[in-house]
Amino acid sequence: MTSEHFYLGVDGGGTKCRARLRTADGLLLGEGLGGPANIRLGLDRAWSSILDAIQKALAQAGLDASAFARLHVGMGLAGIVTPADRVRTRATAPTFASLSTETDAHTACLGAFSGRDGAILIAGTGSAGYALINGQGHAVGGWGFEVSDEGSGASIGREAIRVALRAHDNLSPETGLTRQVRQRLGGSPAAIIAWVNDAGPADYGHLAPDVLAHAAQGDAVACAILAKAAKELEVYIRHLHALGAPHLCLMGGLSTPLTPWLSPWARSLLVEPEGDALEGALLMARRNTHLPIAKSALS
Amino acid sequence: MTSEHFYLGVDGGGTKCRARLRTADGLLLGEGLGGPANIRLGLDRAWSSILDAIQKALAQAGLDASAFARLHVGMGLAGIVTPADRVRTRATAPTFASLSTETDAHTACLGAFSGRDGAILIAGTGSAGYALINGQGHAVGGWGFEVSDEGSGASIGREAIRVALRAHDNLSPETGLTRQVRQRLGGSPAAIIAWVNDAGPADYGHLAPDVLAHAAQGDAVACAILAKAAKELEVYIRHLHALGAPHLCLMGGLSTPLTPWLSPWARSLLVEPEGDALEGALLMARRNTHLPIAKSALS
Repeated sequence: MTSEHFYLGVDGGGTKCRARLRTADGLLLGEGLGGPANIRLGLDRAWSSILDAIQKALAQAGLDASAFARLHVGMGLAGIVTPADRVRTRATAPTFASLSTETDAHTACLGAFSGRDGAILIAGTGSAGYALINGQGHAVGGWGFEVSDEGSGASIGREAIRVALRAHDNLSPETGLTRQVRQRLGGSPAAIIAWVNDAGPADYGHLAPDVLAHAAQGDAVACAILAKAAKELEVYIRHLHALGAPHLCLMGGLSTPLTPWLSPWARSLLVEPEGDALEGALLMARRNTHLPIAKSALS
Repeated sequence: MTSEHFYLGVDGGGTKCRARLRTADGLLLGEGLGGPANIRLGLDRAWSSILDAIQKALAQAGLDASAFARLHVGMGLAGIVTPADRVRTRATAPTFASLSTETDAHTACLGAFSGRDGAILIAGTGSAGYALINGQGHAVGGWGFEVSDEGSGASIGREAIRVALRAHDNLSPETGLTRQVRQRLGGSPAAIIAWVNDAGPADYGHLAPDVLAHAAQGDAVACAILAKAAKELEVYIRHLHALGAPHLCLMGGLSTPLTPWLSPWARSLLVEPEGDALEGALLMARRNTHLPIAKSALS
């Protein structure tokens, strides 16, 4: 029993980190939750969160850090952009039986299609697409809300402020949305400028629910913002499909509200994910060890 | 002679401050240059720059600070947004014979049309419009490049980065412009993101000349960016004209290169400014003292 190997998947994001432990047969042994693990926050902090999540998952199976050498680990981490990022992440890792490291988009896509060809498009505070075709990953977008991340919550919120200021200047129509956005940010353009000076993507993204609520009531300006966001997401969808992804999973907080704004063609490509990013990470750990995938591991 | 009154105009911007001294007859007595006088930099700093410029102008006429009480001063200052900004600027002023304070857009518009109805549209690092109709000022735009300033150099530069990243992701065409922009910012998306993290409006604006140069050679992506910028400026032009401005002056570093991209209708409204913002400030100083305007003061 002490020579038994385990499979452990990690999904590390900017706000939290999750770990899931399974046997070689795919039996679920434990799960653990840790803090932020985006490697941009620093490798020390990321590893601290990851190891916290791993040890919690091990504890549920009556195991501890002494089992590290028997763990085949797959990790999908936010903030991994270049091959060098993977190298320095691996270089600071404890000794596991094996370790594979990829972006969180890679593991999310692996999990969503159980390793088959497919693509994901994340529409949350930011936006980014990822396709896996013949084992090859293709990332698109996600370079940040200043110059990328079209169709994201941050882009939608920023556009809401733009139209609210234009309405104030009588450059475009005043509606319930434009009035509410100005009111929410202090009323006057001076107050709005002060708010913008301190605002990050998450702050802009917090305005997206206002746009959704007003669009649901037919507000013409809100509807135009969402139609534009959907059109921009559709550029990503078209690209990911052209790369060879037969189906896509739309993910993130805006996936459900934005889906009805997509064209019928784009909607026809969408499917629900089969597994989550942790299952994708577990699949990566199994592939890394050249073991067959237990069917139960993906159920 | 010691009871003679003088007229002094000030144009205070974010990088420098200018002052111009004229007699009641409009005779030019002196000019002075000072440092930044945008009141957002702090009133102490702004006043220090303004008084520096004023004293240099006085010195050219053989005068010094003892002449302050004989100066009718008009000031157009960047950063004045609310009535409260005017009040606190005036409250910290030395004792002049009279003092009128307005935004730099107001004095630029006054000077451009010698006090008659008209409008200005500034297209530089930022963009903003201002119309003076029946003595009433109307400001539009200029709320900052994050959520406003359409058609500005900062907006054009940011759009150039956006299309450069989209071309990298094969989402839109690769051209000479998209290659050059990526190369200029370090080549890789990771380098571009790092650049964006530290970039302000002036940094983005520094990419506008690349867009202009490539557009001049027919680069399709560069041309599309300028066409969009011109279309956005035209929204401002249409609005300022609808407010009652029979003519407009296009100002700022992008006014000359962007003019050919405007529609024939918009171009037909454009005129050259009759006087600069200092003449506008001098005109304001004269109006404040209810004295007739000497014709020579506007030549």
